Amino acid sequence: MITLSEVAKRAQVTAATVSNVLRNREKVHPETAERVLKAIAELGYRPNLNARALKKGRSSTLALMLSNIANPFYPEFVLAAERAARSAGHFLLVCNTDDDAKVGQAYLNQIAGTFADGVLVMNTDIAFNEFCTSTMQSVPILLTMWERPEAPPALPCIAVDFARAGALAAAHLLELGHRDIGMLIGDGCGGLQNARSDGFLAVLRAAGIETDAAAVLQIRDSIDAGYAACMQLMANRPQLTAIFATNDLLAIGAAQALITLRRTVPDDVSVIGITDIQLAHQVHPALTTVAIQTAAVAELSVDRLIRLIQTPDQQPSMVLAPPPELVVRASTGPRRAASS
Amino acid sequence: MITLSEVAKRAQVTAATVSNVLRNREKVHPETAERVLKAIAELGYRPNLNARALKKGRSSTLALMLSNIANPFYPEFVLAAERAARSAGHFLLVCNTDDDAKVGQAYLNQIAGTFADGVLVMNTDIAFNEFCTSTMQSVPILLTMWERPEAPPALPCIAVDFARAGALAAAHLLELGHRDIGMLIGDGCGGLQNARSDGFLAVLRAAGIETDAAAVLQIRDSIDAGYAACMQLMANRPQLTAIFATNDLLAIGAAQALITLRRTVPDDVSVIGITDIQLAHQVHPALTTVAIQTAAVAELSVDRLIRLIQTPDQQPSMVLAPPPELVVRASTGPRRAASS
Repeated sequence: MITLSEVAKRAQVTAATVSNVLRNREKVHPETAERVLKAIAELGYRPNLNARALKKGRSSTLALMLSNIANPFYPEFVLAAERAARSAGHFLLVCNTDDDAKVGQAYLNQIAGTFADGVLVMNTDIAFNEFCTSTMQSVPILLTMWERPEAPPALPCIAVDFARAGALAAAHLLELGHRDIGMLIGDGCGGLQNARSDGFLAVLRAAGIETDAAAVLQIRDSIDAGYAACMQLMANRPQLTAIFATNDLLAIGAAQALITLRRTVPDDVSVIGITDIQLAHQVHPALTTVAIQTAAVAELSVDRLIRLIQTPDQQPSMVLAPPPELVVRASTGPRRAASS
Repeated sequence: MITLSEVAKRAQVTAATVSNVLRNREKVHPETAERVLKAIAELGYRPNLNARALKKGRSSTLALMLSNIANPFYPEFVLAAERAARSAGHFLLVCNTDDDAKVGQAYLNQIAGTFADGVLVMNTDIAFNEFCTSTMQSVPILLTMWERPEAPPALPCIAVDFARAGALAAAHLLELGHRDIGMLIGDGCGGLQNARSDGFLAVLRAAGIETDAAAVLQIRDSIDAGYAACMQLMANRPQLTAIFATNDLLAIGAAQALITLRRTVPDDVSVIGITDIQLAHQVHPALTTVAIQTAAVAELSVDRLIRLIQTPDQQPSMVLAPPPELVVRASTGPRRAASS
């Protein structure tokens, strides 16, 4: 494959100049441009995906802004989004805003209308959402993983019914006979994951079960935090027979803590999470969880962002992602008759 | 904080035009430029990090190309690299090449000399390294996580002494009395991780121990592959008392397999990896590993890339990262007298 660099070398210009000639974006001296076009013809250079996309008057580079690349959920989303973007002829650049709205604003300032022709913003905090709204005039922005479909934001978004995810987890534990249930609520990048816990509690209440405040902890969403919180939870309430965590990292940390406490999962205590990250099936015992179908949401998000760039006026303000689904593995089981 | 978008709105231009005025990069109509500068003055707009960096004639945006964002090692590197870049006044854009050299080439074509003023390329295959060499004329490229310091590439690089990492793992297992040791060699994005296994085997051989070929498996570096390979290894050689894996994912998968086989870690079988990803201390039992000090390597890489951009002629062709270090946790212990 002939590369842009080889064209540049033959034409004795920089790669940027070749790129500018292909894009007609900056004034290139006519003699230089002719030399570049001659080199392209002689070498039989085929412009890459990007150049082709530009020819059609389409944008070519998307950006994905996420808050915490160290949380394994985000890399899984990136992987699927990058593949979806590329198969549609677009590049995807990823910006990690490090859980800091100011950093997010700096990146958005940097990329809006220059590098990126459209930006996907993953669940962030309210301050940043407001900033996105003010930037929307210079570049199309699509929020994704919006957790509350019943309260749409001012920007176009892809919403996931996280309350339903919580409800499915509750129904599963109730069906297994659990009544003494602890809750670990993650305080994630988009704020407290309370759409999930609200959905969970609604089902419990409908069944006539009230969760004691002492059996609920709010913590950062990491394995380490889930571990520490579960130790505390079991010290507070040793009679618990199940733990619901609003995300898999917390649930995995909780299961590790139970091993340390020599409580068997699921015979003594059942554990369930939400998300279905890769690690959920890789730990032992494999984690029961509610899958939010990360790859499908990523693909939908990329598809909708491209539409938003191409025909902004024809797009719905909110699109609902496929519904979450219960995935039963080895970490949940019937409440033991002995423990009550 | 006044944003670029607000300036654009007041001056009735796009954000891209404001950006162009700040950079003097494209011809902006003088009247338009004056309107933009007036808006900047009236609003008291302070250009962001990027604009300030550009004023000093410094580049502002770095790119990091990696092959497999789904492998948890990479997000940890990204996190540290992004923080290092930002604290030096640079943005970092991440490209996931999805383990495909052709995709890597397309990204590099896209970003070289346009979006990015310098590119960090993480351990990739030989074909891609050659491509990088041909692109080096249009943008500074620094390879990082180069696994064989004794054989430097044609490009500037940051090398990690992975043979030493393997040697440290071997010395640790020998000291604990292990003689029947299985090996899981990862076939990673940069090819077979044989610098690590060579370092390991050299120490074993120096101690008069030959590893049987049947106790060595070469596999993709993932938890799932480590799990499957360990099942196979223990079926082939039930007398093994220790397993060395060239990376933590394989080691974690192996430990999970041993649990399934009801072999206790470390009483029956010790397990050791290389890298020290976050997960290594989060699993139960916590994994003994050789830390390659990911964050330190990421910071060094960013620092060296910036120098390469600023003063390309004064930079050494290879810089050695801080040496790997043994981190003893709970997954390794003395060989039991019973098993021999």
